[in-house]
Amino acid sequence: MGTPSLQDPLFATYAIAATLMILKAVGMSWLTVARMLRANGGFRSPEDLRKTPLNPQPSPKQLAPDESVERIRRIHLNDLENLPFFLVAGLLYVMTAPSLWVARLLLYGYVVSRLLHFAAYLTAQTHDLRATLWTIGSLILVFMTCRTLLAALGW
Amino acid sequence: MGTPSLQDPLFATYAIAATLMILKAVGMSWLTVARMLRANGGFRSPEDLRKTPLNPQPSPKQLAPDESVERIRRIHLNDLENLPFFLVAGLLYVMTAPSLWVARLLLYGYVVSRLLHFAAYLTAQTHDLRATLWTIGSLILVFMTCRTLLAALGW
Amino acid sequence: MGTPSLQDPLFATYAIAATLMILKAVGMSWLTVARMLRANGGFRSPEDLRKTPLNPQPSPKQLAPDESVERIRRIHLNDLENLPFFLVAGLLYVMTAPSLWVARLLLYGYVVSRLLHFAAYLTAQTHDLRATLWTIGSLILVFMTCRTLLAALGW
Repeated sequence: MGTPSLQDPLFATYAIAATLMILKAVGMSWLTVARMLRANGGFRSPEDLRKTPLNPQPSPKQLAPDESVERIRRIHLNDLENLPFFLVAGLLYVMTAPSLWVARLLLYGYVVSRLLHFAAYLTAQTHDLRATLWTIGSLILVFMTCRTLLAALGW
Repeated sequence: MGTPSLQDPLFATYAIAATLMILKAVGMSWLTVARMLRANGGFRSPEDLRKTPLNPQPSPKQLAPDESVERIRRIHLNDLENLPFFLVAGLLYVMTAPSLWVARLLLYGYVVSRLLHFAAYLTAQTHDLRATLWTIGSLILVFMTCRTLLAALGW
Repeated sequence: MGTPSLQDPLFATYAIAATLMILKAVGMSWLTVARMLRANGGFRSPEDLRKTPLNPQPSPKQLAPDESVERIRRIHLNDLENLPFFLVAGLLYVMTAPSLWVARLLLYGYVVSRLLHFAAYLTAQTHDLRATLWTIGSLILVFMTCRTLLAALGW
């Protein structure tokens, strides 16, 4: 790859996968907000119990954990443990000049694995299914990272 | 944009915004340390109760949550949920060759929104104000990401 | 630095440090899994108590925090607070065209400091030792970030 450019098919593949994953992560923040509004609770800061236009009838119960909100927070934390590393690993990986179809398979495969992981987690599927989907994404991430490391070492 | 370079005004704009946000995030770690020292508590690991030069008089109470420390941890977590994605989204966004003033508006606007969010959270302003400031930053992030996605898709 | 390339010694130095840190962070996820399997607990989601091939004998105790698992989660969180920012700061730093030996000292020094921090945290060394190792890495990160900021500002 020469100068990074969104016109380069390889770099564009990365950019599409990266932006989809960023939107996914940011979406978790918005989903947390949506669920806190629906549950009228699941807040975390003492000042959130003040009476405001958005919270006209505060109650101490609003600071108690709400499972529907906590579920999104767990999904979000899982994103934080994975996506930032994917975003950098993917960028470096396309600099190893892989073939376009391999790059698409890995980068889009990662995106699909994370979206399915989200669907499985959101709907409380079994741990086994969730773990399997997470593993697929993690192995793709490890593969891209090791491939880049070897290329950087000149192997 | 051609080769990424700190001499390029567009890329320099990104680099300034990115480094300020990195310093902000790292500052949260240091602020946590400062508050743990002041509170002489808010620790998290059992071994932190061992007698050492930095902790000459250990007490089990030191492992209890301390609200002044917990507040910084919540701010820090909010950074982790936002800044890593901004750092990558901003980098990709400047590759779509936006006009310099739009890029400055978005990137520096994001930085300002996050610094104000920090000030509001630190001083325990109402949830409504904090949420408004977060929303501004999040919308900037979503806009930059969508713009990049469309550019990468060739639209 | 011209076009970023894994053949460029400076960029390769960054890529080696970055990929090692990504593998380190991903390793924490796998280590969490390994410890949850060993402890047969430390789970977090209600659905993890369902009977499945991976969890043939579920018990409510499996949702209680397990210290051996919590330790890895704390280490992991510390990674999330540091590594994503290092990954971007390091990338921008090599664009300031530092001398190769300084870049190697800082980037590999950071990697070593984080690996020692991990070893100290995993084996529950004193807070003082852990804090010292964290501080070394954090100061390297702050230095690289400030150097980049000054370069982007044209100083």
